[in-house]
Amino acid sequence: MAQWRKETLRVLVDMDMVLCDFEHHLLAEFRSKYPNLPYIPLSKRRGFYAKDQYDKTFGSNSGDKIMKIYRDAGFFTNLPEIPNAVKAVKEMNDMNLVDVYICSSPMFSCNTCLTEKANWIENYLGHRWVEKLILIKDKTLINADVLIDDRPEITGANKAPHWEHVVFTACHNSFSEIGQKRRLSGWTDGSWRELISTFLKQLQINNVES
Amino acid sequence: MAQWRKETLRVLVDMDMVLCDFEHHLLAEFRSKYPNLPYIPLSKRRGFYAKDQYDKTFGSNSGDKIMKIYRDAGFFTNLPEIPNAVKAVKEMNDMNLVDVYICSSPMFSCNTCLTEKANWIENYLGHRWVEKLILIKDKTLINADVLIDDRPEITGANKAPHWEHVVFTACHNSFSEIGQKRRLSGWTDGSWRELISTFLKQLQINNVES
Repeated sequence: MAQWRKETLRVLVDMDMVLCDFEHHLLAEFRSKYPNLPYIPLSKRRGFYAKDQYDKTFGSNSGDKIMKIYRDAGFFTNLPEIPNAVKAVKEMNDMNLVDVYICSSPMFSCNTCLTEKANWIENYLGHRWVEKLILIKDKTLINADVLIDDRPEITGANKAPHWEHVVFTACHNSFSEIGQKRRLSGWTDGSWRELISTFLKQLQINNVES
Repeated sequence: MAQWRKETLRVLVDMDMVLCDFEHHLLAEFRSKYPNLPYIPLSKRRGFYAKDQYDKTFGSNSGDKIMKIYRDAGFFTNLPEIPNAVKAVKEMNDMNLVDVYICSSPMFSCNTCLTEKANWIENYLGHRWVEKLILIKDKTLINADVLIDDRPEITGANKAPHWEHVVFTACHNSFSEIGQKRRLSGWTDGSWRELISTFLKQLQINNVES
């Protein structure tokens, strides 16, 4: 029997700050809830966790306020879309030999987060996309070719994950060190198409060689 | 640099009918809600989906009643434990070189199911286990060594999943054809220890050979 050849490019797309604008909504809610408190504008956001930067800048009480906001019911359902994300992801999934999954590392201990993430997918991408949702703490365990994620460092139990990590640019990571990794600066300029084409070519080369 | 060697046995453990007694609770709720309707005793359950067997046996209205029960709020939180499951899984995870994850394919479109699955894990296994939960429709995408699951056939986008599927015996699969797969008949007789030891030995052999 001929050896099985992997012919589909499997792309994992993260949710917060790749599909959904977590930071924008968080800041808006913070400013609306605490109009008299100091805040960190998005242009000054550094580091993955807003809570940590608020703690460091304004004291720990401030970080707790931030955390409470995204633990409130409705927060994840109401996240706005990152510009053109939905259109791009649907187009990517319709490309020949490309299969897209949504891969999110949610707050499992937050009662609203899991359901609201599924709701967001249903609202923005449509019902059949909900079944493409993967909720997992450790993304290194997923066997895929590409992971588009705003977190600059993604580590876990699998020290040699199958995917290549493409860093999706977000306010908090614009100045982050990402080593040799590629960046995707957004969905609007269409550069994601070239990126995916490069990966598809590599997949075809690997298939010929195997 | 020496080649990275995989030294941990990664075991995926399914939820319904492996950790949680879905079928028992479903039947109990059905009989309590419809005391005058005919039902299928667990000894006569065949096929993965109860709904399908009820439809086939009593007509489609019956299958809809079944489905409505497990879509009701509270159903997944209130599932009883499969005997000795929690003790076994904790002991397994404490074994040297073994890492256990809970891997469930939930009803993503059911608003209560995701959160209630996390709640069940927190209630029965404890808070830190919630982060070991993987909610995914297609388990073939996970890179692990063993998958303990009651579903006799597990297929998906990855035609060559990394794991070996061990069929966990449940009422509905006792007579199912499982080909060359191994079975685990339950958590009570302790045979899971021997099974895991066999996989650990195989892992060590592979590490020496690599």
